[in-house]
Order: sequence, then structure tokens, then C-alpha cells
Amino acid sequence: MDRIYRIDDTGAVRHVIEQDGIVSLLDGDLFDGYRPGREIGRTDAAGALPRHLRILAPLVPSKIVAIGRNYREHAAETGKPVPTEPVIFIKPSTAVIGPGQPIRMPPGAGRVDHEAEIAVVIRRRASHVPRARAAEFILGITCSNDVTAREMQRRGVQFSHCKGYDTFAPLGPCIAVALDASALQVEAWVNGTRRQAGNSRDMIFPIDELVEYISSVMTLLPGDVISTGTPAGIAPLAPGDTVTIKVEGVGELTNPVVMGYEGPVNG
Amino acid sequence: MDRIYRIDDTGAVRHVIEQDGIVSLLDGDLFDGYRPGREIGRTDAAGALPRHLRILAPLVPSKIVAIGRNYREHAAETGKPVPTEPVIFIKPSTAVIGPGQPIRMPPGAGRVDHEAEIAVVIRRRASHVPRARAAEFILGITCSNDVTAREMQRRGVQFSHCKGYDTFAPLGPCIAVALDASALQVEAWVNGTRRQAGNSRDMIFPIDELVEYISSVMTLLPGDVISTGTPAGIAPLAPGDTVTIKVEGVGELTNPVVMGYEGPVNG
Repeated sequence: MDRIYRIDDTGAVRHVIEQDGIVSLLDGDLFDGYRPGREIGRTDAAGALPRHLRILAPLVPSKIVAIGRNYREHAAETGKPVPTEPVIFIKPSTAVIGPGQPIRMPPGAGRVDHEAEIAVVIRRRASHVPRARAAEFILGITCSNDVTAREMQRRGVQFSHCKGYDTFAPLGPCIAVALDASALQVEAWVNGTRRQAGNSRDMIFPIDELVEYISSVMTLLPGDVISTGTPAGIAPLAPGDTVTIKVEGVGELTNPVVMGYEGPVNG
Repeated sequence: MDRIYRIDDTGAVRHVIEQDGIVSLLDGDLFDGYRPGREIGRTDAAGALPRHLRILAPLVPSKIVAIGRNYREHAAETGKPVPTEPVIFIKPSTAVIGPGQPIRMPPGAGRVDHEAEIAVVIRRRASHVPRARAAEFILGITCSNDVTAREMQRRGVQFSHCKGYDTFAPLGPCIAVALDASALQVEAWVNGTRRQAGNSRDMIFPIDELVEYISSVMTLLPGDVISTGTPAGIAPLAPGDTVTIKVEGVGELTNPVVMGYEGPVNG
């Protein structure tokens, strides 16, 4: 299976492909006929890319369309009903960060939670797509952390706000191309302790239904991301924490947590 | 005052500047030092651009950050309290259309309303901007129609959804550069009858406060739009209607209303 990373190689930002441990530059168009180009290295025994390649978010989407309460046990822990149609909202591109970049807790916003999610990366402009054709519009799967200012959410602030702060959308580490996402484990770990665990087979609205539903509302563009909802176990983060999202077949997305704003972000 | 249009001149999409009736190509960078280039025509007696230039949305922002209940009389008509801090949400870039393009009412979504708004176009990357410096980050003003599926909104659907359908963000016709927006009239007209009227001096949160507040949550990028909220008089649209948003000093943004989806949009 192809794993696509976006990397910063001593200042040059490029997409690369990892196939069976061989890391190559990506030639062609990520969304329309790419192929491996020049080999630039090999993964180590643990599967990690060469150390001089800094891994960025696999792309910066025009929008992240995220889903609320898509697992029954999570709906129960929020004290809200299981939805009868998908709860959709938008996280802005400016919230995106890559692996290793800090999640910044906004001073005064109160409790900030992790939400481990399976994220779908769109390959083709998608409008009014029937569910039977959804797979044609998907490039692959990545890990998403739908970071949420929980107290703001509970007092009725729009989700685009309480989930839209800069750094509240970690994505990565790679896009697992054409990965079958019908039964993938998804987990959140904080400081080495597992906090959330779920499996995509328990989604209330599976991925093909989400593509149909969202694309009947708003056009999805190549590179747009659907963050498919979080399983039970949401819990607060604190400055100094390290949070890891694991999606089976994709890898691990790890970010430190800090308090406050310290300059421009995005990446 | 410069008025910047984005036009389709028999297939070529360009920004142009209108200054005192002279229409010129825009040379340089819209956000960082533009100047009038070659003259391509003159406005007519009514101030309209030459007829062969089709006017598009003045730009396609990475996001529209829109404001709920920013006028007291409108807050009253919604039956909700006057907010104590700005109500912010995101409309996606894929909702943007230009003058003349149809607003498409989604079948089954119920009542769809116009919302006349003054829209601010961002000029520079804006993060944690103090209100005293807000003007440095603003390019100009345009007209916005924050089209809303009202019944969905009333049953608690997230605003990004009920206000995020394709075609639900008409913008235009131009960017009035450096227009003082502290006391501008804003109106909605449907089929020649005035339905909404307000003035930006009655905003609960004025534009400089909105720039400060939003930029403390999420970074604004060059070309991003803040749609500053609608005055009282929201009312439903019907297929066959023609809706015009007027903002003093900017111009008129007119769109027909049709029912249903008929193919790709964006413009």
C-alpha cells in the first residue's frame, strides 16, 4: 500500500511516497495520477522515515468537514441523542497542524479535549455523489484529532468556533492510499495511557453515507478532509501532555500540548 | 475610491480596477501593492462595466467567517438574546457565487431566507490583531448575502451546514477599497420591494472588534471574508424571486433564486 507523506527536506516541501520501506519523491499529481520518482531513502526497522525529513500535515485542505456524535457510546457520554442524520460542521484550514507541532490551549477557553478520528481525504471534486460511488472520490485515510474547547461547546457556541482554533486540527502522519476503512481501530493515547478506543464498523453513518450526505450539501474539493467522528472516551488535555491518535493501517499522530499563543502557526 | 472587480472577459478571468469610470487591468498583487494597468474600457452613464465583461465574485476566500445576531432588532426577531460576545461560524468557499448566478434552494430543506450583510475583505494574514490596528488588515468592503435554510437552523443544525450549501454565499459585485464602513446603509430587496434595512453604526460588535475577536480564535488569510451580520427583516425566498443586496458605497449584488441542483457551481 502507498503511504503519502508531505515532508520538509531541509527547507524544500514535497510529497513523498513510501512503498515497502522505499521512500521516493512523488511525481505527477497527488489527486490525478501520481507515481514514485527518485528514491530518497529507506524507512528504519520501526518503519520511520529518514530522520532529516520533517513530517508535515499530509496536506492543507480547503476545509475539514467534521462529524458530531457518529458513535453510539460517544453520543451517550455527551448526554445528547443519537442523531438521525449526520451532524456536520466545518473546521478551517488554519486549524491544521502536522505531527509534532504543539496544540495550543487558548487562555480562558476552559477545558480542551482530544477526539481521535478516522479522516477521509477526498481525491476528486465531489458533488451529489451517490453512496455506491463514494470510493471513487476518496484518495485515502489519515489520523485526525478533532480538538475541542468543551465548555464552549456545552454552552452552545458554534462548533466551527470551539473546534476551529488555530492548532485544533492535527492531521497525519500520512495518507494511507485506498485503505479499506470499513473496520479500522481508532484510539487516543495521552502520556502513554489509552483514553479512547473504537472501530469504524461501529459508526452510525459509515463513510460512504457521509460522502453522499455531505456532497449533497456542499461540494468537496480535492484534498478536502472528512473527519468521521470520535468514539467514547473524550477527556481533557493539560499543558505538558503528549497526545497520540492511532488509526490501524495508517500510523500514529503525536502532538505536544502547550498553553497559549506564541506566534504564527500552520503546517 | 478604487473598486476592484473580478471579471470573465470572454474566457480570461482577471481582476480589474474601476477608478472614476475608467476600467483598467489590475497589475501587481491584489493584497500587496496593486496598480492600474492597461485601460480596457469605461463605465456607462449608470456606472456599469462594459457589457462584455461578466462580473464574478470579487474573490473566492479560503473561508467566510460570518457573524450571528449582530444587530439588536434582528436578535429580537429571532427570539434569541442579544449576544454578549460575537457568534461566529464558517461558510465554506464552495458556497460562494457571484452576481447573476442562481441561489439554488435545496429540495427538502424548507424555508430559505436572504440575509443582507456588509462583508469585510481581509488584506493581510491576521492573527491576534488588536482592534486599534484592525484597519491595517482590511482591503475593503463588499456585499454579502448570508443565505440560510431557516427551518434547519431553528431545529439546531450547525450554522456551517444550514448556511453552507453550495450557492448560499453570494458576494460582490466589487471590493470598495478602504471604504469607511462605520456608518453604511445595508439593504435587501426582493422583486423590487425593500425587505431589510440597517446601518453598520447599529452593529452590536463593530468591525474592529470583530477583527480582534475572530483573529484571536483563528488566523484570517488574505482574501478571507468577514460577513458582519444581518439587520432585521429576514424573510423567505421563493423560486423565481430576484434578490438584491445593497451596501452604500459598494453597489448592488443581485441573484435569481431557483429550486434544486443542476450541475457544478462556483464562481
